[in-house]
Amino acid sequence: MNEQELAALVAKIVQEQMGNTTSVASPSGDMVPVGVSNRHIHLSQEDFEVLFGKGATMTHLKDLSQPGQFACKEVMTIVGPGGAIERVRLLGPARKQTQVEVSVADCFKLGIQAPLRDSGDLAGSAPITIVGPKGTVTAPEGCIIAVKHIHMHTSDAARLGLKDKDKVNVQTCTERGLIFLEVLVRVSDKFKLEMHVDMDEANAASLKNGDMVKILGKS
Amino acid sequence: MNEQELAALVAKIVQEQMGNTTSVASPSGDMVPVGVSNRHIHLSQEDFEVLFGKGATMTHLKDLSQPGQFACKEVMTIVGPGGAIERVRLLGPARKQTQVEVSVADCFKLGIQAPLRDSGDLAGSAPITIVGPKGTVTAPEGCIIAVKHIHMHTSDAARLGLKDKDKVNVQTCTERGLIFLEVLVRVSDKFKLEMHVDMDEANAASLKNGDMVKILGKS
Repeated sequence: MNEQELAALVAKIVQEQMGNTTSVASPSGDMVPVGVSNRHIHLSQEDFEVLFGKGATMTHLKDLSQPGQFACKEVMTIVGPGGAIERVRLLGPARKQTQVEVSVADCFKLGIQAPLRDSGDLAGSAPITIVGPKGTVTAPEGCIIAVKHIHMHTSDAARLGLKDKDKVNVQTCTERGLIFLEVLVRVSDKFKLEMHVDMDEANAASLKNGDMVKILGKS
Repeated sequence: MNEQELAALVAKIVQEQMGNTTSVASPSGDMVPVGVSNRHIHLSQEDFEVLFGKGATMTHLKDLSQPGQFACKEVMTIVGPGGAIERVRLLGPARKQTQVEVSVADCFKLGIQAPLRDSGDLAGSAPITIVGPKGTVTAPEGCIIAVKHIHMHTSDAARLGLKDKDKVNVQTCTERGLIFLEVLVRVSDKFKLEMHVDMDEANAASLKNGDMVKILGKS
């Protein structure tokens, strides 16, 4: 099969897979709900106390979909050489290392070049300054653009024939239809099935919290 | 072939088509350069004169890639019920009807719900207020999010076996790989081959001006 025939076949199969792309997808075994991540901050306990005062504790605002994770009442200003973004929310609980997750659009505003990274993979990532009511933290690294990923409980992974760190192609069922390629799968007994995208990705695909997307198969 | 086999085949073919997704794509017949459209304004001559003064003429700043189109020195503030965005650039020449093109992110800031539309298809689109140095225009409609599209010269269309208003699937060759589904093709003797995406789409795919994307085939 030559390249042109392959391309035609892809188009045909994608079309068959898509059906009516503007309708809400019917739930099936390989459908995954979407969670849209706005810019946010994870803090080490040490950095939290620098920003909010010695002995301060994180204030629970609401639970997030991933078990044990929660949004806090605390917000901060993040600053780069090009500008600042105010009211960036803290997510709890405390982590070993402070991590700021932003979008490409945010990077333009901050004047930084944060790398695309998995959560926790911070070596050599962008420097960022965080300003709180009681102090300022200047992290030499810790600012990233999180790669899109699917959180998956071990039982979901078994059902779908996937394992931790697999990559899959995922199709939206929205007005702005697209296929995300090479979406990272993270599997744990502590995870709940959900695909996380950032604001740029959500906007580009017209995705909102709770929309369903479809796993097409391994990349 | 059942759905699961189809999905596996899509993944396999997409993978074969992709090759190394982080490398710059090698130019070939079905590659198209990308133009990233930031928010911008097209004005009718009448509205231009309300905003910039009776008898004013548009000031050429630089040519755009599409023949006859140019960016102007003039910038304006656009305003919705939720907020304003300053320094939005005018594109010339004058059009029959004033049209403001924004992104989903811009809509959040402006507090409006602009529809996804082809350029020129403005009936029932979002209201928007435009403030210039000499006056203000409140358009009852005219604000849209432009659907991604490919401008194509008639000779390109013939070579690619496409016609005006066809839809194609288009794959990026970037770090954030994805396939845009149902991309509108516009064909004219006045067009130069180029795919236009907005800032949200560019950010979601790590696309910059001049990056090459690949037409996979008709949707």
